[in-house]
Amino acid sequence: MEYRIEKDTMGKVQVPANVYWGAQTQRSIMNFPIAQDINKMPKEIIRAFAYLKKAAAITNFEAGVLAEDKKNLIGQVCDEILEGKLDDQFPLVVWQTGSGTQSNMNCNEVVAYRAHVINGGSLLDETKYIHPNDDVNKSQSSNDTFPTAMHIAAYKILVEVTIPGITKLRNTLDAKAKEFKNVVKIGRTHFMDATPLTLGQEFSGYVSQLDHGLRAINNTLAHLSELALGGTAVGTGINTPKGYSENVAKHIADLTGLPFVTAENKFEALAAHDAIVEAHGALKTVAVSLMKIGNDVRMLSSGPRSGIGEIYIPDNEPGSSIMPGKVNPTQCEAMTMVAAQVMGNDVAVGIGGSMGHFELNVFKPVMIYNFLHSARLIGDVCVAFNDKCAEGIQPLHENIKKHVNNSLMLVTALNTKIGYYKSAEIAQTAHKNGSTLKETAIALGYLTAEEFDAWVKPEDMVGDINV
Amino acid sequence: MEYRIEKDTMGKVQVPANVYWGAQTQRSIMNFPIAQDINKMPKEIIRAFAYLKKAAAITNFEAGVLAEDKKNLIGQVCDEILEGKLDDQFPLVVWQTGSGTQSNMNCNEVVAYRAHVINGGSLLDETKYIHPNDDVNKSQSSNDTFPTAMHIAAYKILVEVTIPGITKLRNTLDAKAKEFKNVVKIGRTHFMDATPLTLGQEFSGYVSQLDHGLRAINNTLAHLSELALGGTAVGTGINTPKGYSENVAKHIADLTGLPFVTAENKFEALAAHDAIVEAHGALKTVAVSLMKIGNDVRMLSSGPRSGIGEIYIPDNEPGSSIMPGKVNPTQCEAMTMVAAQVMGNDVAVGIGGSMGHFELNVFKPVMIYNFLHSARLIGDVCVAFNDKCAEGIQPLHENIKKHVNNSLMLVTALNTKIGYYKSAEIAQTAHKNGSTLKETAIALGYLTAEEFDAWVKPEDMVGDINV
Amino acid sequence: MEYRIEKDTMGKVQVPANVYWGAQTQRSIMNFPIAQDINKMPKEIIRAFAYLKKAAAITNFEAGVLAEDKKNLIGQVCDEILEGKLDDQFPLVVWQTGSGTQSNMNCNEVVAYRAHVINGGSLLDETKYIHPNDDVNKSQSSNDTFPTAMHIAAYKILVEVTIPGITKLRNTLDAKAKEFKNVVKIGRTHFMDATPLTLGQEFSGYVSQLDHGLRAINNTLAHLSELALGGTAVGTGINTPKGYSENVAKHIADLTGLPFVTAENKFEALAAHDAIVEAHGALKTVAVSLMKIGNDVRMLSSGPRSGIGEIYIPDNEPGSSIMPGKVNPTQCEAMTMVAAQVMGNDVAVGIGGSMGHFELNVFKPVMIYNFLHSARLIGDVCVAFNDKCAEGIQPLHENIKKHVNNSLMLVTALNTKIGYYKSAEIAQTAHKNGSTLKETAIALGYLTAEEFDAWVKPEDMVGDINV
Amino acid sequence: MEYRIEKDTMGKVQVPANVYWGAQTQRSIMNFPIAQDINKMPKEIIRAFAYLKKAAAITNFEAGVLAEDKKNLIGQVCDEILEGKLDDQFPLVVWQTGSGTQSNMNCNEVVAYRAHVINGGSLLDETKYIHPNDDVNKSQSSNDTFPTAMHIAAYKILVEVTIPGITKLRNTLDAKAKEFKNVVKIGRTHFMDATPLTLGQEFSGYVSQLDHGLRAINNTLAHLSELALGGTAVGTGINTPKGYSENVAKHIADLTGLPFVTAENKFEALAAHDAIVEAHGALKTVAVSLMKIGNDVRMLSSGPRSGIGEIYIPDNEPGSSIMPGKVNPTQCEAMTMVAAQVMGNDVAVGIGGSMGHFELNVFKPVMIYNFLHSARLIGDVCVAFNDKCAEGIQPLHENIKKHVNNSLMLVTALNTKIGYYKSAEIAQTAHKNGSTLKETAIALGYLTAEEFDAWVKPEDMVGDINV
Repeated sequence: MEYRIEKDTMGKVQVPANVYWGAQTQRSIMNFPIAQDINKMPKEIIRAFAYLKKAAAITNFEAGVLAEDKKNLIGQVCDEILEGKLDDQFPLVVWQTGSGTQSNMNCNEVVAYRAHVINGGSLLDETKYIHPNDDVNKSQSSNDTFPTAMHIAAYKILVEVTIPGITKLRNTLDAKAKEFKNVVKIGRTHFMDATPLTLGQEFSGYVSQLDHGLRAINNTLAHLSELALGGTAVGTGINTPKGYSENVAKHIADLTGLPFVTAENKFEALAAHDAIVEAHGALKTVAVSLMKIGNDVRMLSSGPRSGIGEIYIPDNEPGSSIMPGKVNPTQCEAMTMVAAQVMGNDVAVGIGGSMGHFELNVFKPVMIYNFLHSARLIGDVCVAFNDKCAEGIQPLHENIKKHVNNSLMLVTALNTKIGYYKSAEIAQTAHKNGSTLKETAIALGYLTAEEFDAWVKPEDMVGDINV
Repeated sequence: MEYRIEKDTMGKVQVPANVYWGAQTQRSIMNFPIAQDINKMPKEIIRAFAYLKKAAAITNFEAGVLAEDKKNLIGQVCDEILEGKLDDQFPLVVWQTGSGTQSNMNCNEVVAYRAHVINGGSLLDETKYIHPNDDVNKSQSSNDTFPTAMHIAAYKILVEVTIPGITKLRNTLDAKAKEFKNVVKIGRTHFMDATPLTLGQEFSGYVSQLDHGLRAINNTLAHLSELALGGTAVGTGINTPKGYSENVAKHIADLTGLPFVTAENKFEALAAHDAIVEAHGALKTVAVSLMKIGNDVRMLSSGPRSGIGEIYIPDNEPGSSIMPGKVNPTQCEAMTMVAAQVMGNDVAVGIGGSMGHFELNVFKPVMIYNFLHSARLIGDVCVAFNDKCAEGIQPLHENIKKHVNNSLMLVTALNTKIGYYKSAEIAQTAHKNGSTLKETAIALGYLTAEEFDAWVKPEDMVGDINV
Repeated sequence: MEYRIEKDTMGKVQVPANVYWGAQTQRSIMNFPIAQDINKMPKEIIRAFAYLKKAAAITNFEAGVLAEDKKNLIGQVCDEILEGKLDDQFPLVVWQTGSGTQSNMNCNEVVAYRAHVINGGSLLDETKYIHPNDDVNKSQSSNDTFPTAMHIAAYKILVEVTIPGITKLRNTLDAKAKEFKNVVKIGRTHFMDATPLTLGQEFSGYVSQLDHGLRAINNTLAHLSELALGGTAVGTGINTPKGYSENVAKHIADLTGLPFVTAENKFEALAAHDAIVEAHGALKTVAVSLMKIGNDVRMLSSGPRSGIGEIYIPDNEPGSSIMPGKVNPTQCEAMTMVAAQVMGNDVAVGIGGSMGHFELNVFKPVMIYNFLHSARLIGDVCVAFNDKCAEGIQPLHENIKKHVNNSLMLVTALNTKIGYYKSAEIAQTAHKNGSTLKETAIALGYLTAEEFDAWVKPEDMVGDINV
Repeated sequence: MEYRIEKDTMGKVQVPANVYWGAQTQRSIMNFPIAQDINKMPKEIIRAFAYLKKAAAITNFEAGVLAEDKKNLIGQVCDEILEGKLDDQFPLVVWQTGSGTQSNMNCNEVVAYRAHVINGGSLLDETKYIHPNDDVNKSQSSNDTFPTAMHIAAYKILVEVTIPGITKLRNTLDAKAKEFKNVVKIGRTHFMDATPLTLGQEFSGYVSQLDHGLRAINNTLAHLSELALGGTAVGTGINTPKGYSENVAKHIADLTGLPFVTAENKFEALAAHDAIVEAHGALKTVAVSLMKIGNDVRMLSSGPRSGIGEIYIPDNEPGSSIMPGKVNPTQCEAMTMVAAQVMGNDVAVGIGGSMGHFELNVFKPVMIYNFLHSARLIGDVCVAFNDKCAEGIQPLHENIKKHVNNSLMLVTALNTKIGYYKSAEIAQTAHKNGSTLKETAIALGYLTAEEFDAWVKPEDMVGDINV
């Protein structure tokens, strides 16, 4: 490979000849050979940096501390980053400095050197027209840019991937709840037969879980909308022009179309990332919901002959390499595996969040890596589960009917007629003898056949169906 | 010990002669000899049951399905429970059935049998005037009462213990932030010397964390205010009178003075406890904040001679059994240990929450046990830390001044005057030579003594002090 | 209440007149009003302290630095503590100083003052014959005694409660595996019908899990057997007589009957508690096994009419307060709740373990609290589950036979005869038509009735039964 | 793109014309569009499959159920996979079916079709010479191959990456411990000044942690060495030739050079992955150690002027984009971030491990993904930290001396001379007056100058230096 020489405050570094990055990016590649093939800094963070570098350039220009042509050049490269044209210029990994300084400098260098080239310069020029620190990073520090990029990336992925994914699944489940609202089936508590409900009612519980989950996520957006930018090195805003914090937040809001504001307290914004912890707590809550839903769907569809078998789910692929004809609830499995991952990520996020010291938290990359992972997984898996499983769910009426009619727990309807103790005796006797509730009730002399038929009707035991 | 005989639907059981509980409580004692000395069902759950049993009796009376004298008797015993008079009548542990059925029955039995005695009966009477199932548990199931008790207990402890505790600490820290707002000190990022800020600014970050934490907790109260009661066995509300759900929630709201409402979806309310997961996520977020604050305070107070030593914290006790005169930041230690516990509890809550199946989650006791533990610990430790540590914090001005004046990072003020690279050269040279910034800057010829004095003033580097 | 005055290096403190503790214990009560009713320092730690204080006194006597009568007096009080006679003299909570200094001093004070009384003195004497620091704590520091107590308590509970509990359950499951070794039943993978195995084989998997879990626990005992005692303040052993570390470990080994040795490196032994983290990892592994076993047992016993219903488990109590005659798998629920708790505790232990700094880890109490909790819960719940559930498990042959004979996955036996693809076609066609494998196979012309009967025998599909 | 048509038991699928995979792989791509750009099935699993497919082919050949040329062709493709030549033929993600069936089939298809091409066939041939199911997967099931691949991959990465990485760091720290064994420095407990030790002793604690961590990992290898292969669909070994399990394990051992054996119980081996949970627990223990070491190193090197500053660590890169000349402990940050990640991964692994049901655990991919992630991160970060930080650590003697000589805790040496209480008075008085211990001790009249000099020598307070 051919190289050129770049310099930073520590001296010279060999850099591949044709890349836009410079000395500090190269040092990071050499210093952090840690999972380099699998743990690149997430692209969402790179894009978020592009928004904020452009916004900072505009704000600096408006404040009179950056020339207009430099502002334009910086903005032009940021647009290229946002279009994905420079993805291969960001080689750094998550496992670098905990402030993300090196990814900030990666961005500063790529923007500066690419701008220099756009401006007619050559990568081999010793001095570039745009300087990574003095121009691209003007009025900024890694300490306020990286947490700003975290919030931009987190907010964006929630509204663009996570919330739409959950909502899509929620809407399908809601349609199913309405479609199945009159399908009376046996209830199960403790995995044991219980009083009946309708399949639509059962599904309405899932919808309610996701509705609450969406509210939980939405509740965390306000904290995520606060941006650290303007705090610079330690939160005091050293080396920023007047009004910078508010203005740069406004420009970021304009560029992203999202309601970002400057953080009310910059010291918190650099030293703690409770907003990320809090928002991931909401993601974990949704993961918990998805685990429940995924488990229910696979158990309801279990069988086909020796399980519960009350719903049909689509056959998407052969299920076994050895058992011919086997079909498995694979979408449920992907979804519940995602849930396990998100629950684990939550711990990594929490530990990282708890370990800030003095003016800076230096677990920033690991926190946002896990956050973006979870947000993406939930969004993607909800869509896959929706498209390949939920939309195709259908009741298997024959099994449903068989189960509800067999149930000894229909006896519960008799509590208010003959009391809990006599009802229990009927159920226990029927269970022991393998007889039906009706014949047992009559045999015990507690009620007549007519009374039984009038009082024990599964369809009357499901309450107001309001799904 | 003397015994009497009690019966349930499974037969006879020997019960200690003079206790108010009955057969099912006794069975649970015998069946679950698991950590019986340390893991009793939390008293907050018992009290919450008292509220709901009283509210249910009133609602049943109003619906015409319970006699007035029975309603009154039930209410009277519930009041005794709330006053703590019957605490020793609740011997069951957390590790019982996952629906909490046995604690519900413990409550039903104690209320029924104590009411029977109040009514002039004897515990030895074979038939009691009030029946545990048919009267005390009327229009209820364990499946809706236990989650209702969970929400009542969780909501109450948050507003009575957790939020007041956090608020107390927040207010003290806020007063300290204002008191210290002009105390200029060195900033530290990556544990390394950085640009200055004021001690008040540093403390304002803690205040902002707790403010956001309080908001996070408050955001979760709406979901917690939804009560399952009225769902009965599987969410359909079987065996409840008309209007029961709404009315009983209103009575609970009246009795507790808290804004409880009936859950919009009873199927979720029995089968999932995402509200608990979500709210505990907010508690974990606060724990993460407390870990940061506790760590900062102990490191800032470290020394007394060979640490950072920038703040004084009160000496509450001798710190060492072997090192005479040693004093340690013990309140920080209690607080950070609580943080670790809450972060662990969060995982137990999440796993429990994820494992509901069909119409019921049967991890209810473990979930609420951990929730109440965390809520209590945070509330208590905030008060202890506040009273025994935070209130007594004072700056150690001599050390603070020494540190800030020594700092090489004051050079940052020169970035906008002479650029990042020359500034870096000054700092690196001074570091290498052990010289001051000023003498180095002059020696390198980058600026004059007068310029240095005019440009490098720690007190001008802290921005707008707005704490 | 009446009080007496006690003093420590910080001054005078009012102490209840008739307690054996002194000034430092009293200060801790006042300084740490945190969950005082529910989180007392575990009694296992108090007992462990009694062993080590007695061993230290003997060692000090043998080294010539403690008088014989003092040694005897100290030993006598330690024996009283071990007999449980002084339990109410240890009022401190987990949430104190992170080194456990206050519990060490609580022990020093109680031993000293009780010894003084045994020796004929009065609690009101200003000077006691035995001094908490200079005699009871001689050659010790909290920093080495508390971690020593942690290891003693952890090792003891593992061998006295946890391992016996797991072993008891393992043996019952092993007996069941042998008893059921020829009960051919359907296998289930992905919750879907699969090829057959025997119920005994299924149970043998549980036995193998517990066997491996027991090995995992045993693997961690070596690290737990290393004692910090002799490291004193920072690991250097300051203020200890020659040979002290080895001798005191030997005396502890003698007193406890367990193979304790002095830690090879005292700096680790004070500053890190990886042995606790490692051993709790093994407990978590067992918790994971118990979750699997508990879930399987409750799902296998589900029904009675609309579930899987392949095994009977004992009816221990009425299962529902509203559904008469309902019986639930409550022991499974206690066991899986314990599993969730242990998995949460594991995170608290890990965080605590990760947060040692320099010469000391000050998360000692929270770590051992969680460890003892988990060890106790696993031991207790295995016994309860064993006695009240596992021992009573019986196959429900009728259901088992119905399920296995229905299964489409018996077709797998044909893979080696007619290939995977034709086999799949048979299974899919039978599933679609609701027909049997046999009639479908013949109809498709792939084999004769005789061939089917010869090749498709569930009892031939279970391999070597070796449970 | 051009396509060809492939078939499986469900019908026809369009597959890119020139890829070696077939219908089932393609279905998985379409069915699981979940984080496809970031969560490919780890390459370690693909390589492990290559080993096992080759071993299975050999074993089948030896058992007389696979032709020799087919065995050779299969082995040849497996070798290509192991050489990394076919990496782009494995496009599937972690978030697929929980049994890993689709990755097993991906491997079966690639091996079969590539073998067909090697054998002179064309991808367009409707029938291939080697069949994915009937030949490549012969005597196998996803249910036993995927867990076998998990164990192969886990064992290999531990011995090839994790253990060597930890060992490298351990050896450097051990050399440092010996190099620094006489550098007397202040001890710190609770972040507070304590009695002295040597820097070498401090480092020896880190070495001891890693030694124990290595032992902990090694303790888990036995369980990992057990292979599921031969259990096939549900553990019974249906459709395998006699002696298959033992033979195939022997061949895998030969091919990998690692001591694999057939699992003693195949039912456990398919339905539970406690070996992975257990081994990851050891990784978490090491992560906990690394968090301690990383924190200590960064705090010991803090400053340069206003921190502790007792050690020098190498300057690897400019530390700040705004503060010129700043250098940060970035390797510590990468290492502690890795620790947080591993602690989170541990929860995901545990949850996945706990959720097996009946004959199969279907959280296989998420478990091994997290395991390999942790194992890799620990190995890599230990090497980076070693090379870029640990090797360059040097004491800063001036600061070290200043701190130890100032320390009030040198007073501890007087405990055995004048008692704990008088010693405490000296320290407290010196602290209050800002005086030295010596002048205070004399002023209080407790000892002479000569006695002080004789008794209080830091170098005599560090015990036997044995690092």
